[in-house]
Amino acid sequence: MPILHNNPQLNKNGELQHLLTIEGLPKSIINHILDTASSFAGISDREVKKVPLMRGKSVFNLFFENSTRTRTTFEIAAKRLSADVINLNIQASSTTKGESLLDTIDNLAAMHADMFVVRHAQSGAPYLIARHLNESGQKDIHVVNAGDGRHAHPTQGLLDMYTIRHYKQDFTNLRVAIVGDILHSRVARSDIHALTTLGVPEVRAIGPQTLLPSGLEHMGVRVFNNMDEGLKDVDVIIMLRLQNERMSGALLPSAQEYFKSYGLTPERLALAHPDAIVMHPGPMNRGVEIDSAVADGRQAVILPQVTFGIAVRMAVMSILAGTHG
Amino acid sequence: MPILHNNPQLNKNGELQHLLTIEGLPKSIINHILDTASSFAGISDREVKKVPLMRGKSVFNLFFENSTRTRTTFEIAAKRLSADVINLNIQASSTTKGESLLDTIDNLAAMHADMFVVRHAQSGAPYLIARHLNESGQKDIHVVNAGDGRHAHPTQGLLDMYTIRHYKQDFTNLRVAIVGDILHSRVARSDIHALTTLGVPEVRAIGPQTLLPSGLEHMGVRVFNNMDEGLKDVDVIIMLRLQNERMSGALLPSAQEYFKSYGLTPERLALAHPDAIVMHPGPMNRGVEIDSAVADGRQAVILPQVTFGIAVRMAVMSILAGTHG
Amino acid sequence: MPILHNNPQLNKNGELQHLLTIEGLPKSIINHILDTASSFAGISDREVKKVPLMRGKSVFNLFFENSTRTRTTFEIAAKRLSADVINLNIQASSTTKGESLLDTIDNLAAMHADMFVVRHAQSGAPYLIARHLNESGQKDIHVVNAGDGRHAHPTQGLLDMYTIRHYKQDFTNLRVAIVGDILHSRVARSDIHALTTLGVPEVRAIGPQTLLPSGLEHMGVRVFNNMDEGLKDVDVIIMLRLQNERMSGALLPSAQEYFKSYGLTPERLALAHPDAIVMHPGPMNRGVEIDSAVADGRQAVILPQVTFGIAVRMAVMSILAGTHG
Repeated sequence: MPILHNNPQLNKNGELQHLLTIEGLPKSIINHILDTASSFAGISDREVKKVPLMRGKSVFNLFFENSTRTRTTFEIAAKRLSADVINLNIQASSTTKGESLLDTIDNLAAMHADMFVVRHAQSGAPYLIARHLNESGQKDIHVVNAGDGRHAHPTQGLLDMYTIRHYKQDFTNLRVAIVGDILHSRVARSDIHALTTLGVPEVRAIGPQTLLPSGLEHMGVRVFNNMDEGLKDVDVIIMLRLQNERMSGALLPSAQEYFKSYGLTPERLALAHPDAIVMHPGPMNRGVEIDSAVADGRQAVILPQVTFGIAVRMAVMSILAGTHG
Repeated sequence: MPILHNNPQLNKNGELQHLLTIEGLPKSIINHILDTASSFAGISDREVKKVPLMRGKSVFNLFFENSTRTRTTFEIAAKRLSADVINLNIQASSTTKGESLLDTIDNLAAMHADMFVVRHAQSGAPYLIARHLNESGQKDIHVVNAGDGRHAHPTQGLLDMYTIRHYKQDFTNLRVAIVGDILHSRVARSDIHALTTLGVPEVRAIGPQTLLPSGLEHMGVRVFNNMDEGLKDVDVIIMLRLQNERMSGALLPSAQEYFKSYGLTPERLALAHPDAIVMHPGPMNRGVEIDSAVADGRQAVILPQVTFGIAVRMAVMSILAGTHG
Repeated sequence: MPILHNNPQLNKNGELQHLLTIEGLPKSIINHILDTASSFAGISDREVKKVPLMRGKSVFNLFFENSTRTRTTFEIAAKRLSADVINLNIQASSTTKGESLLDTIDNLAAMHADMFVVRHAQSGAPYLIARHLNESGQKDIHVVNAGDGRHAHPTQGLLDMYTIRHYKQDFTNLRVAIVGDILHSRVARSDIHALTTLGVPEVRAIGPQTLLPSGLEHMGVRVFNNMDEGLKDVDVIIMLRLQNERMSGALLPSAQEYFKSYGLTPERLALAHPDAIVMHPGPMNRGVEIDSAVADGRQAVILPQVTFGIAVRMAVMSILAGTHG
């Protein structure tokens, strides 16, 4: 994993300088983020949902790939911290004028940016930016990876951990199943790293062979191609979104076929532990990877995930803003 | 009118819970909105044009149909109330990922949204959202209809009433003419309901037969196909915008022909009461439905309508934000 | 220069009412802007990068031509002054509904706008708006030209002057060279006017004959077609961006040819004064008009220009907001 080499996300005191991936993130930092998120969870219920922790700070949402949903969660989190938010949709912008990515970053940094929330179709783009900022001595500017290619989506992984901790308290006695297109999922990668770090004894990956990456066993993951077997007695089920572009591709016969084999129905859910929770990063394809009866059922915690996601992003941003390189 | 059945805009105490339509809205609530708007009208002239009434509240502008002008008025109104505003242009967003409208709403609600300002090409979409929020127990989230299909545009109707009250004080001795494409106009529908509720004794609809809906007489409206006759002695003239797509269609011969028969010229305006005011929801087609000499003349109150529109939207938003379901 | 006639940017007390062009702007006003910018320069380094000078003011970014970079600098400047900012991308908006430019302006003015930052592909558009506001008695609404056609880009010119003053202190003993496509550059026009007004004794224009406008000599500029000669002993080098659309046109053989004759390399830079600074308005075409070794070298002040640009825009906006017509 060349990306891991010289990971710039921790400073030399071991503090979080950027949030790029959960891979290699110490348990203590994950727990610090979750604890901080806990302290923010109540704010959103208050009459005035704002705290002044980032007042006067400038947060740039740099979305090189369109994702209104993710951008919105970061925008809300930043505004509830009282930051100024600038949304930049970079396709339509200076890169069309032939400016390089790092020239764009240097320019925005020169405007005294405090934080870049970066979404990019290419794996590693947020690393490139973080490393460049560190190397050019701009260590008070922080990068949050909001999803890079197939690689990582660390705030989604963290909010998943927050959700599991909220409902299950203890990680060390859980069976967690991740179901679906693990091969193309940055969420799955982030979750597997987090679950392992937090001491989950049994992580399962369930999906058709064509959608499972090789090497999962080396990450300590048990692989199941049969969903009924994989769900047996699990405490947590993390469903993945089946990307539209896969459904008609060579990897899968059809959405209907997929649902028959890997759709989460009430019958299948009954195979899991009776208190099992059902998670999904959204947006859901109802009737493809998940049945509406499950999506809207009593075991689903899909909407709480969204709510916790705001608190987790507030936590990440405020921790970074308080860290000095 | 099936939409009226079980209208979710009033809570069980008869307070405004959502603003969806003027149809069926009690006179007392309309007056309360207009009075509240009055109290805001001065704020925009002050050095600091803000009040903290919605500080920390999150207002989502959900525009499923592009309308920069309307979106801007709501954005300004919300910011002058100190709310945080998130603009979502939903065409380019998650619905393209196949997520259903209500899943999108549930997601945004889970981010602790306080208000949705909804513009949608389909009549009834804001009702669907409001009903869903009520039924799922999310009664502290409020919906404002910013225009749905041909059905309603209640804040435009309210600002029209504010304008008439400002210039004419008393509604109960007025003749009001609405001129143009009433068939396709949500503004006309909203205005007719409001005028009737506020006790205007004579509402007239003027236009070619092809652009007048059937059943106007049952709403107590006098219908005129001849503009000169229709304008005689009226106190208020509400011109409607002729949509570009109508001009070359089967419904109308041409823009020039239309202007000849229904364009508001100084000569025609002279048929109305000498103190008659001329209104238009904008944007105007000068030389199509209105002559520039009238649009810029002393009887036009088209720009004051815009100014009052901000105060009216501030009133609606602040009243809703203070209502608990 | 018909545009200069009856220039509406100064009010009858000679105060800045709008910022439209540096042409004809008195030296005292330029210096006042630079001094005010100086006082803001420190704010961006503070923990809370905001001052409440424009709290409650509404600034509209009216971009009739896309320019994310310029829009971002104004958005940041306005937010650091605590203004509310509304971004309007007007292509996609009401002009598509056939509304005229001045109707759009009147509408936004009626929403109690305080400032319009205008970018337009047509030279003179910001004048049209400013004159209209003055003539219609809306003298408390101010216009900032953020680039109009080939004509002017005054805040860029001012930040260039700020940069030169920062590094060179005194204007009256400088040789300044402007290099490249001066014919199509609003930046070059603004810079030449500013340099002349501030007393720079020698301004040089360097470029191929096809990219130099006629009449430069009448503006007191020395013209060079040979870059080596033109750079000799200069204290300041202002490189211009070569627009992509020129590179393959009839005006120029190719980007490679251009670089050979007019690209700023370390060898060429050595011909200038040893303390010469290198400026560029961005975004740069590395390897076309400037070599990366120079762009990233010790004499480049290209990123400080960006930083100073925020302070200069804060200065312009706050001065205008304090001026009453």
